[in-house]
Amino acid sequence: MDGLPARRPDPRVERSRTIIRAAALEELAQSGYGAFTIESVAARAHVGKSTIYRLWRDKLDLIADAFESAHEQAVPDVTTGTTAQRITMLVQHVAEVAADSLFSRCIPALIEGAGHDPRLRDFHYRYSARRRQSLTELIAGGIRSGEFTASCEPDLAAQAMLGAIFYGRLMSGEPFAPSQAPQLVAALLRPRDASSPEVS
Amino acid sequence: MDGLPARRPDPRVERSRTIIRAAALEELAQSGYGAFTIESVAARAHVGKSTIYRLWRDKLDLIADAFESAHEQAVPDVTTGTTAQRITMLVQHVAEVAADSLFSRCIPALIEGAGHDPRLRDFHYRYSARRRQSLTELIAGGIRSGEFTASCEPDLAAQAMLGAIFYGRLMSGEPFAPSQAPQLVAALLRPRDASSPEVS
Repeated sequence: MDGLPARRPDPRVERSRTIIRAAALEELAQSGYGAFTIESVAARAHVGKSTIYRLWRDKLDLIADAFESAHEQAVPDVTTGTTAQRITMLVQHVAEVAADSLFSRCIPALIEGAGHDPRLRDFHYRYSARRRQSLTELIAGGIRSGEFTASCEPDLAAQAMLGAIFYGRLMSGEPFAPSQAPQLVAALLRPRDASSPEVS
Repeated sequence: MDGLPARRPDPRVERSRTIIRAAALEELAQSGYGAFTIESVAARAHVGKSTIYRLWRDKLDLIADAFESAHEQAVPDVTTGTTAQRITMLVQHVAEVAADSLFSRCIPALIEGAGHDPRLRDFHYRYSARRRQSLTELIAGGIRSGEFTASCEPDLAAQAMLGAIFYGRLMSGEPFAPSQAPQLVAALLRPRDASSPEVS
């Protein structure tokens, strides 16, 4: 399997890929990684197993591609506004995704599967690290440009912001409300002028 | 089963309970909640199934008791020092537990199982809420006494502190280092005198 057919821009193949990716995430959310099989995804997507194996090497390849694709579609435009506004938009977006999305419903399966399968663990950590990296870089950029000082190192601030959201999703019955994003961001960034304690 | 025999202070029974609780958490960490059975715990603890059923109603009763008991043993003395110092000690303790403990190894199973079993979900959320509550109350107390102002509401600050730790455990390959606890706490609490930006 060299993966080349997956890159051919045939609209029928693209349509199949979209349907199969969604079926894969639904199956992962419902059954967990251990019980996830190509057979069950094929049945859910109403395609043959061979169709799936023509497009992806194995179940991890399919799951990883489905996550990457879902992320590409979902990421908001954070290229305008002050850095603090862009950070707030990004944190709010993560809170919205965590509160209600197919991706969010898959997180417990990712976490549990990562404890048993080293390849899934590698994917899960790399995927999360890349997403955290965007936030860390925004925070570091705002400090460099002098827009604000952080109350701690940029990566720790990013972990506290994302952590509050994932804590709500995974450890409590109440998801982190997207409307709390400005308060959370303001708690971790400080305006350069120390006499005014809030970042708007 | 009325649970009364479990409360009789017979040292042999207490010893069995301790061994069976540890076996239950080991089994949960390794097999997950779905595959967890009283049979497998009995085999692991080298006792008969009937011994377990004399002491606990069912698998959730056993798991809940094992968690409560582990928590009682582990919680640090946070009754001395300034409120900020007590908060830092508590956050550091949670970071140590998250970095390396049998409890920590069970969290993925709790999260995954909570998605499928409403009774486990109730237990998981209530257990986490009670632990977060201690931290929220410490923060609220320090604000009331005028020791510091928080940069956000006490419960949000607690979520950001605990969230950074659980994010490290569940979403990244690097556990939150307990030595970062003072920096994390200082990032979310502000001294009453706004001219000095850090809480020690």
